[in-house]
Amino acid sequence: MEPRFSHRLRVRFGECDPQGVVFNANYLLYFDVAYTELWRDAFGSWDVMVERGVDLVVAESMQRWRSPARFDDELDIGLTLSRLGNTAITTSYAMKAADRLVLEGEIRHVVIDAADGSKQAMPEWLRSGLAPYAQ
Amino acid sequence: MEPRFSHRLRVRFGECDPQGVVFNANYLLYFDVAYTELWRDAFGSWDVMVERGVDLVVAESMQRWRSPARFDDELDIGLTLSRLGNTAITTSYAMKAADRLVLEGEIRHVVIDAADGSKQAMPEWLRSGLAPYAQ
Amino acid sequence: MEPRFSHRLRVRFGECDPQGVVFNANYLLYFDVAYTELWRDAFGSWDVMVERGVDLVVAESMQRWRSPARFDDELDIGLTLSRLGNTAITTSYAMKAADRLVLEGEIRHVVIDAADGSKQAMPEWLRSGLAPYAQ
Amino acid sequence: MEPRFSHRLRVRFGECDPQGVVFNANYLLYFDVAYTELWRDAFGSWDVMVERGVDLVVAESMQRWRSPARFDDELDIGLTLSRLGNTAITTSYAMKAADRLVLEGEIRHVVIDAADGSKQAMPEWLRSGLAPYAQ
Repeated sequence: MEPRFSHRLRVRFGECDPQGVVFNANYLLYFDVAYTELWRDAFGSWDVMVERGVDLVVAESMQRWRSPARFDDELDIGLTLSRLGNTAITTSYAMKAADRLVLEGEIRHVVIDAADGSKQAMPEWLRSGLAPYAQ
Repeated sequence: MEPRFSHRLRVRFGECDPQGVVFNANYLLYFDVAYTELWRDAFGSWDVMVERGVDLVVAESMQRWRSPARFDDELDIGLTLSRLGNTAITTSYAMKAADRLVLEGEIRHVVIDAADGSKQAMPEWLRSGLAPYAQ
Repeated sequence: MEPRFSHRLRVRFGECDPQGVVFNANYLLYFDVAYTELWRDAFGSWDVMVERGVDLVVAESMQRWRSPARFDDELDIGLTLSRLGNTAITTSYAMKAADRLVLEGEIRHVVIDAADGSKQAMPEWLRSGLAPYAQ
Repeated sequence: MEPRFSHRLRVRFGECDPQGVVFNANYLLYFDVAYTELWRDAFGSWDVMVERGVDLVVAESMQRWRSPARFDDELDIGLTLSRLGNTAITTSYAMKAADRLVLEGEIRHVVIDAADGSKQAMPEWLRSGLAPYAQ
């Protein structure tokens, strides 16, 4: 299935480990970069959302490694918002290097008040702005 | 339940993000540090295992964030090997800051031949060395 | 003075610290990314050089911070090879965010044999390939 | 010459690169860890200083690599405050792995007002607290 949004980045030397592959923690960094780009596509930038009083925090995350990515590989990070709940957003993602599946994962963010960090309901403008990226 | 092994580390400033908390990817780095220390406790070092021809790669991982950790917090990373399979090791972990639960997770590593990277059965010396840390 | 090569990248959230700015160590990572891109421009990729038996290691580095870069800033990393010596390459660099100077620095790499790590003279094909980026 | 303060840390797997050595940017991270520990030794913690209204930002930094550090090496990071100026602190440092010199460097921090980021003179309590670590 085609993802609703895709971002390409290139693996950096300093992100790889002595096994010659991307160190496992760095895939979460890559996800975060692609997620930020989806927000840019939807709202102009992540900060546009924060300035409107809303922020997100990560609540849960899962990864399945399928094959290694290496220095200089170009990774296509495909994202689909698999669930827009009342207070949470679930995102499915897959990373590919030239059509070879590298990693699949899912991540759940919780909507919070940007000022005090308390959980809040997803405002309508956020939900409708994200709708094009939802399943 | 008490973990079978625990390692303490201190959160570094450069590991925290503009929200003032540990950036989510860095918890996987912390897990990796604690896992390496369990190997030191069991075998002398990770490299002792590699020199005997065996290595591990991450296959699957899951995290649930419970509360944020911040700069200078001391984190206690508790590990329990929840399953020693034929070709894989599953580890449950929890991170705490002064008894406050920060993160819970599970990770599955696959045993490989250190020379060619192929999947292999867990050798008996590895299984028996890890037994004290298993559930 | 115009740099001989320039690479643009965008600051990632996870690269910024609780002061809201890029954590100081990450500027060296950024330099490394731009340096790799210069090699891509000159030779196709860094690995083309390594496959021809040559690699580089960092020997010395210097940075002067002029103003902070923040999450989502686009950084233009300008590089000029200020000296192509017999066994070393010195590079001057400057990072700018929308024409505001963020960082200036200099770095010196030493040419080594990719197989055994010993210092070696710069081969002629490397020198001539880098000449367009030299002062 | 003996440094005035020393902190030991262990190199993590994820901090090493495909050459099998610590990725160059990570030495700045290591310095920052040791610098934070000097502040803990002098004042209780870095945040004690910030709560008293003062913070520091990096202005200039220099590194000379002498030999590589590898995964699992223990690094001794020796610090000496080589100059306590009116508005700046210069620190000389050296990192060693079992008495082998790995890196030498110097870094200059500028004293700022923690609230608005403006440069300020070093308060007397800061100067006297740092005196035992000065040359």
